[in-house]
Amino acid sequence: MVDQPGTTLRAGARHPAPGWSSDEPVIVGSVLGADYAHLGNEVASLTAAGVGRIQWDVMDRRFVPNMTFGPDVVAACRKYSNMPFEAHLMVQDPDPMLADFVAAGCETIIVHAETCPHLLRTLATIRELGAQAGVAVNPSTPLDFVRYVLDHLDEIVIMTVNPGFGGQKYIPAMEEKVSEMRALVGRSGRAVKIEVDGGISTATAKAAWYAGAELLVAGSAVLSHPGGKKAAVAELHRAMAPPPPEP
Amino acid sequence: MVDQPGTTLRAGARHPAPGWSSDEPVIVGSVLGADYAHLGNEVASLTAAGVGRIQWDVMDRRFVPNMTFGPDVVAACRKYSNMPFEAHLMVQDPDPMLADFVAAGCETIIVHAETCPHLLRTLATIRELGAQAGVAVNPSTPLDFVRYVLDHLDEIVIMTVNPGFGGQKYIPAMEEKVSEMRALVGRSGRAVKIEVDGGISTATAKAAWYAGAELLVAGSAVLSHPGGKKAAVAELHRAMAPPPPEP
Amino acid sequence: MVDQPGTTLRAGARHPAPGWSSDEPVIVGSVLGADYAHLGNEVASLTAAGVGRIQWDVMDRRFVPNMTFGPDVVAACRKYSNMPFEAHLMVQDPDPMLADFVAAGCETIIVHAETCPHLLRTLATIRELGAQAGVAVNPSTPLDFVRYVLDHLDEIVIMTVNPGFGGQKYIPAMEEKVSEMRALVGRSGRAVKIEVDGGISTATAKAAWYAGAELLVAGSAVLSHPGGKKAAVAELHRAMAPPPPEP
Amino acid sequence: MVDQPGTTLRAGARHPAPGWSSDEPVIVGSVLGADYAHLGNEVASLTAAGVGRIQWDVMDRRFVPNMTFGPDVVAACRKYSNMPFEAHLMVQDPDPMLADFVAAGCETIIVHAETCPHLLRTLATIRELGAQAGVAVNPSTPLDFVRYVLDHLDEIVIMTVNPGFGGQKYIPAMEEKVSEMRALVGRSGRAVKIEVDGGISTATAKAAWYAGAELLVAGSAVLSHPGGKKAAVAELHRAMAPPPPEP
Amino acid sequence: MVDQPGTTLRAGARHPAPGWSSDEPVIVGSVLGADYAHLGNEVASLTAAGVGRIQWDVMDRRFVPNMTFGPDVVAACRKYSNMPFEAHLMVQDPDPMLADFVAAGCETIIVHAETCPHLLRTLATIRELGAQAGVAVNPSTPLDFVRYVLDHLDEIVIMTVNPGFGGQKYIPAMEEKVSEMRALVGRSGRAVKIEVDGGISTATAKAAWYAGAELLVAGSAVLSHPGGKKAAVAELHRAMAPPPPEP
Amino acid sequence: MVDQPGTTLRAGARHPAPGWSSDEPVIVGSVLGADYAHLGNEVASLTAAGVGRIQWDVMDRRFVPNMTFGPDVVAACRKYSNMPFEAHLMVQDPDPMLADFVAAGCETIIVHAETCPHLLRTLATIRELGAQAGVAVNPSTPLDFVRYVLDHLDEIVIMTVNPGFGGQKYIPAMEEKVSEMRALVGRSGRAVKIEVDGGISTATAKAAWYAGAELLVAGSAVLSHPGGKKAAVAELHRAMAPPPPEP
Repeated sequence: MVDQPGTTLRAGARHPAPGWSSDEPVIVGSVLGADYAHLGNEVASLTAAGVGRIQWDVMDRRFVPNMTFGPDVVAACRKYSNMPFEAHLMVQDPDPMLADFVAAGCETIIVHAETCPHLLRTLATIRELGAQAGVAVNPSTPLDFVRYVLDHLDEIVIMTVNPGFGGQKYIPAMEEKVSEMRALVGRSGRAVKIEVDGGISTATAKAAWYAGAELLVAGSAVLSHPGGKKAAVAELHRAMAPPPPEP
Repeated sequence: MVDQPGTTLRAGARHPAPGWSSDEPVIVGSVLGADYAHLGNEVASLTAAGVGRIQWDVMDRRFVPNMTFGPDVVAACRKYSNMPFEAHLMVQDPDPMLADFVAAGCETIIVHAETCPHLLRTLATIRELGAQAGVAVNPSTPLDFVRYVLDHLDEIVIMTVNPGFGGQKYIPAMEEKVSEMRALVGRSGRAVKIEVDGGISTATAKAAWYAGAELLVAGSAVLSHPGGKKAAVAELHRAMAPPPPEP
Repeated sequence: MVDQPGTTLRAGARHPAPGWSSDEPVIVGSVLGADYAHLGNEVASLTAAGVGRIQWDVMDRRFVPNMTFGPDVVAACRKYSNMPFEAHLMVQDPDPMLADFVAAGCETIIVHAETCPHLLRTLATIRELGAQAGVAVNPSTPLDFVRYVLDHLDEIVIMTVNPGFGGQKYIPAMEEKVSEMRALVGRSGRAVKIEVDGGISTATAKAAWYAGAELLVAGSAVLSHPGGKKAAVAELHRAMAPPPPEP
Repeated sequence: MVDQPGTTLRAGARHPAPGWSSDEPVIVGSVLGADYAHLGNEVASLTAAGVGRIQWDVMDRRFVPNMTFGPDVVAACRKYSNMPFEAHLMVQDPDPMLADFVAAGCETIIVHAETCPHLLRTLATIRELGAQAGVAVNPSTPLDFVRYVLDHLDEIVIMTVNPGFGGQKYIPAMEEKVSEMRALVGRSGRAVKIEVDGGISTATAKAAWYAGAELLVAGSAVLSHPGGKKAAVAELHRAMAPPPPEP
Repeated sequence: MVDQPGTTLRAGARHPAPGWSSDEPVIVGSVLGADYAHLGNEVASLTAAGVGRIQWDVMDRRFVPNMTFGPDVVAACRKYSNMPFEAHLMVQDPDPMLADFVAAGCETIIVHAETCPHLLRTLATIRELGAQAGVAVNPSTPLDFVRYVLDHLDEIVIMTVNPGFGGQKYIPAMEEKVSEMRALVGRSGRAVKIEVDGGISTATAKAAWYAGAELLVAGSAVLSHPGGKKAAVAELHRAMAPPPPEP
Repeated sequence: MVDQPGTTLRAGARHPAPGWSSDEPVIVGSVLGADYAHLGNEVASLTAAGVGRIQWDVMDRRFVPNMTFGPDVVAACRKYSNMPFEAHLMVQDPDPMLADFVAAGCETIIVHAETCPHLLRTLATIRELGAQAGVAVNPSTPLDFVRYVLDHLDEIVIMTVNPGFGGQKYIPAMEEKVSEMRALVGRSGRAVKIEVDGGISTATAKAAWYAGAELLVAGSAVLSHPGGKKAAVAELHRAMAPPPPEP
């Protein structure tokens, strides 16, 4: 999509935020809502479609109302993709689960800041287990919650919907939060990737990317695309291209 | 397996218990430990192998330490089998989950007596949702816990292992509990099916059946049989035949 | 009592159970569903209508889904009746609340057996506070739960509905439980009153009384009677009269 | 009250804060501590006394140590006032209660930020139910907790005492927090009302109003005034008048 | 003490219960209430005084209101006694603590039946750790709770007071429960030791022993004896001697 | 201070932070890991060694995985030291414990911000009990959590390790947090002491002190020093001396 006069992008999203990366953005394929009867195939076709990662939405009926799948399900699907797996733990008290998801083959483990009073310890444990450490923050959660753990963080997930319910709409106000996080990361000099999760589609991806996100989780936009997963991933990439010329 | 002199069956299990049913026992196929990457196929092959039901072991990390799968996974597999599904809810506070598992296509919902202070209400709710109501009791749990709910019960599951951990051994002492339950059901004149769950194999099935169980859950005995699922189910049936002659 | 053709009493309820008391039964007026805007008046009119006690259904959103009122509400109404108050604590962890309800003017405190791992201690505490100690058991709960606390018990409440939801139907099968409790109390030689709670109306009161209950909780049957509370209480008494002749 | 030399107002409170509204402040009448035996009358007399809203302090023994009343009590009193009702939910896990309080007739539902990890979702649910959405923040809670939910907020309650205990003293340091919130709201361009709750009296109302609060909850100052509720409300208004002249 | 006419022993306690053991009873010294500033010395002097075991009352503020000590305190004292240690875990969710107390040097681990929905699994775990497995039952708890775990049990503790509070009085009615347990153990043919815990003194020890207890926990009777621990233990043994002549 | 080549201090720690106090720093002796069999002696020898306070690390198995000791243990040791005691409550829901620890002889009670939704109330309660009020913040916790309670705070503890596990390494990035807190305290004009807790040794003490900490908790550095506690405390003081010359 070309960034011309007349496009419907929100004003604040038209030009990249300070600190924006001109690298190619990565589409993260979520299996939430995939055909659970053939998860191995789903994971394989997401991989063939060009996603750069696979995300597993782990829900426990406590932090969020639904319950999805545990580490054994993830482990069973590991061999059907050579892309990194990330476990997004939408659970209370994630600490006792961390090792299981690393053992199941997840390169990245993401916990929710709202569930971790000992957040630094939790992140350090993830790294000690040999995985990348991520934190997700709900839309209402202040960024201050991650300010003192930047050294221990490989990735932050800015939730652009409220987790735990399907079919929610992307919250544009979160783009400002992404930009603030981008600035915070920039000032710190640390390498922390920013991911957005929730409601990403051809209509929203560019604004989120320009705001500073490098990883964009796509769920139903890919899984339910009438033209198939490959077409869906290609469309998402086109929606974000070309990058704006440097001034 | 023929019930001859010299077999190693425990004495108390050689002749059927009072109230024993000469009907053919039913093998219930559990998907616990199946290939989660291809659950649709697993369910289909269990069905083709001759199981009479499919059991889903739902675990929540609270009542038992693992977490397995929620209702969406079950629903995705419903169309790959025409056998009844039963959900074995090894969860704390199952009440808010009941409707989801009925909607996912489970004909029977089994709750644990240890997690239901309002057990009669829970069972009545299951029936109001149009499903059969079952209760599972851990090995240590008294049968008294179900005595006042027999009117509201379609099935009782006598756990013959402790739930929540794989690879446990069948507890022969539970056969006496099965017999007591059989007698309690007989005296009451109600139609309550008795199921045993845990460690069922060709070595244990006959004794459990003679003790009074009509439904026998088979997990790894079927899923991991070197000759395939069909051979495994056939072997289990042979191990229980022929029924003893009526005196 | 005249046991004539044409009565609609269930067979098992036609003749009093062994141990049945020929004393006049007591109607306990529940304020659940009363006009909470004028509770003082409601309590006064229940008293004028002839109830022998007032029951307060305390619910906490944990043991049961609703939340009703705490001790301050009860205390505010104490002066509007000279009848005994009983607090029926449908709450998790009732121990920290006991003194508050005694201070609020309750002569009897009833806890649920399902919520009290230290049941004897809880009952002893109630007595030390100067109140009568009661235990309520849900329909599914074994009577064994009170067997070792008979010395510490002034009253047992056999729930004849599942607590916590309005508009439920009386469970006739509980009459057998009432009779068993009556026999247990008789053998023990202790003075433990038996109360039934749930669905008591002119259609059900006699059978519950004959089964052995001396206290019968009436809620909507009294509060919602078109002829007023006084007529309602009188009707309930008539439904149970005359007592059967001694053989 | 005239703002003259010699008054005992704290220095920082003498002149309105930036963003201060010259509209008439609204007194919100709390029923906490009212005569619970005659709540209908209490609500009616608060209304006649001139309060602009009625507040219901819902406590659950978990978030705060006391337990007060549930939605049925509120609903029973709805017809005794034509003023808006607001439910101040001092409860853990308020989500399952929201619909009940809207159905009970509350125009505004206020949740505590400390109890809502999914705060934006909770607020959105309140609005979907057709009510105004409010958030209360304890004295120690950072305003950052509401920064990302301003779009979803109709009202913020700055607690000027710690909730859950009666007879606490107004905390003057909260006026600075009110002013900061006023500035935050002003910068955002959204219409979010600011309410103060706790210890409001003739001695404290003006400072809170000048700091930026438009809604002031009055409890015992009105309920326990020797001259009656009407006099009490009038005195509170006089204490805040006249508004300072514009410079 | 001689069992003569005129003694004040309760009738039911004068002659040993069926299954009574004529072996010497064992006094178990509890450190609850010892001088915590010098626990090593206390353990040493209990040992020198002639107790046959040392019991550690582990409390967690959840199952019981107090909090006492964790495994590190026990481990620090291990070297000051050559008598067996037993850990009496008055805690919710004891499973994660079991290994720590075995590692701390406890030969026996006792859990409460009320806290273990998976009781058999918990007991099996204790044995796998190399320790003896015990279950304690509160005064109100039915013996049915241990009926199906006798194979997995080395010791049952019949609480003769309610745990968690000091200074409680021995409950004589528990002697009947001890006798029932003795009969249950006798019929089963298993070797399960019976211990009584709470209020054991020279006034109560004989009746508990005759009822069938072999292990008797003594706390303040030994720790607070004016003549010292050695005199206290000797007095307890004298109070139980001589054993009654065989009929 | 002499800032010479050869010192191993990190660059950012070489010059005192703004607001740094030139007063002598205080070593706080923690008993965590002391010989629990002789705590009275340990407390006495810490006192003789020159610590300025004794800290008690209270853990409950919920907020942190271990469980240490309750108030009775602290009380038993009170008479063995004339130094102030401080209780560091690493527990969920500390409120019901506060009075017990004050009664046990603690001059300061420290709660964790992460466990106190009603933080101001908790702090006020501590002061009402006659003790000094402290708050500890985990490494990941924002300082914003204490911004509105500075009036109610006597001491803040910046955790320089994650609490609840032994043998962790000092986190140098926390020095920046100490400096920010020092600035926040300075601007407020209040007297709030800053303590650092975790990994303090001769290698880390100076940087923490220069960053603005006045109280430094020493655990194993003192308890396990081969030269004894007295030598250890002296070494820590020497590591921080001489204070830098005023500019």
